[in-house]
Amino acid sequence: MDNKFYGIGVGVGDPDQITLKAIKTLKKLDVVILPEAKKDMGSTAYTIAKEYLKEDVELVFMEFPMLKNPLDRVEGRKANTKVVEKLLDEGKNVGFLTIGDTMTYSTYVYILEHLDKKYEVETIPGISSFADISSRFNLPIVMGDESLKIIGLSETTDIEKEIEGSDNLVFMKVSRNFDRLKAALEKTGNMENVILVSNCGKENQEVYFDISHLEKDDIHYFSTMLLKKGGIEQWKKFIS
Amino acid sequence: MDNKFYGIGVGVGDPDQITLKAIKTLKKLDVVILPEAKKDMGSTAYTIAKEYLKEDVELVFMEFPMLKNPLDRVEGRKANTKVVEKLLDEGKNVGFLTIGDTMTYSTYVYILEHLDKKYEVETIPGISSFADISSRFNLPIVMGDESLKIIGLSETTDIEKEIEGSDNLVFMKVSRNFDRLKAALEKTGNMENVILVSNCGKENQEVYFDISHLEKDDIHYFSTMLLKKGGIEQWKKFIS
Repeated sequence: MDNKFYGIGVGVGDPDQITLKAIKTLKKLDVVILPEAKKDMGSTAYTIAKEYLKEDVELVFMEFPMLKNPLDRVEGRKANTKVVEKLLDEGKNVGFLTIGDTMTYSTYVYILEHLDKKYEVETIPGISSFADISSRFNLPIVMGDESLKIIGLSETTDIEKEIEGSDNLVFMKVSRNFDRLKAALEKTGNMENVILVSNCGKENQEVYFDISHLEKDDIHYFSTMLLKKGGIEQWKKFIS
Repeated sequence: MDNKFYGIGVGVGDPDQITLKAIKTLKKLDVVILPEAKKDMGSTAYTIAKEYLKEDVELVFMEFPMLKNPLDRVEGRKANTKVVEKLLDEGKNVGFLTIGDTMTYSTYVYILEHLDKKYEVETIPGISSFADISSRFNLPIVMGDESLKIIGLSETTDIEKEIEGSDNLVFMKVSRNFDRLKAALEKTGNMENVILVSNCGKENQEVYFDISHLEKDDIHYFSTMLLKKGGIEQWKKFIS
């Protein structure tokens, strides 16, 4: 069989940020898998992709719940992989949609992890949330000899140490640990050096340079923060 | 005037990895600026972009030489910015092309740095080299609670410390400091955990998982290394 399992990044929210390669791939699909960790994730990717899909494409919503027990999570991913393998065994071209980039904190990789190596796989990258934010607000993300760190915030992240060790930082999944993040920014004198964007590129986009009044519960699940230790003020001149 | 200065990321080498937004923007341009740090950079971006450009578009090659004295570099960037400002004053739509992403180690940001704030600027992100590599070889770049560090290697980078501090690392500009990088990988036991790609997506692409036999002079200027401290072997199953 020459069918494949495709991972397809469709960008963050702006439908024009999809690549030609993603479009060509979407047109080949017999089945589209829409992952859902939180409600509404799958539907954002589908909204961007749908105009390129075959009329009779089969939609499969797939849940990746953040279960407390890591073993339960693995079992869930294995069960999801079985669903993919069954569709591939039927000779279908199966595409797994991801918001942002395919290989950057996506659930797609959990299928790759468990998928039998006999299948053919092709991955199509997408514009990541941090590339989208830096372009949208004309804020360079990393230049010259600087470094950039991308961090999916967790309970165990030593935020102050991370801030110390890099020139520019992107914090993803900020809603879960926003209070700790804010405290670390205050302590390291970086409260003025950030931009926080929720629902980037979507109708309900929100942008904050001043986060002093925000609390954990104010932050939407789809929020990303960019910290530029060298200062962000001098770059605001092209934000309209 | 409603003309603009545009920064446009066109991806790394595969012409299909351009976004719809980049294509729509290229069609509007009166002038295309092709930056050259090393010979051949500008022409790669132009090869990807040219089918979307107006027939009578004006091409401007712009040099950003890596002069030893930082002040001389700044002077060069300011002079380049004056060229852009003059074109904008003439009412033209001016586009600056970059390989990879516009805001990730590109020379475009040096124009933004010096450009007068009275001009309108719009930046279009592109697929970065590290996103391209991880997708092309089906190697997840960062997942779960892991972190990712992007480093433009310089003489002063403490490579061992950087390796210690992150789960996944992308080393850009590896050719200049390849010997030090290799020594640090050996010392930290990470020689087996890397992929090195030169000229990614181009006809002369080269891929190395075993770098033990490589020396500094073997490495092309356009080379990027991905290090996965958790191991890369288990992910090789989908590399064809």
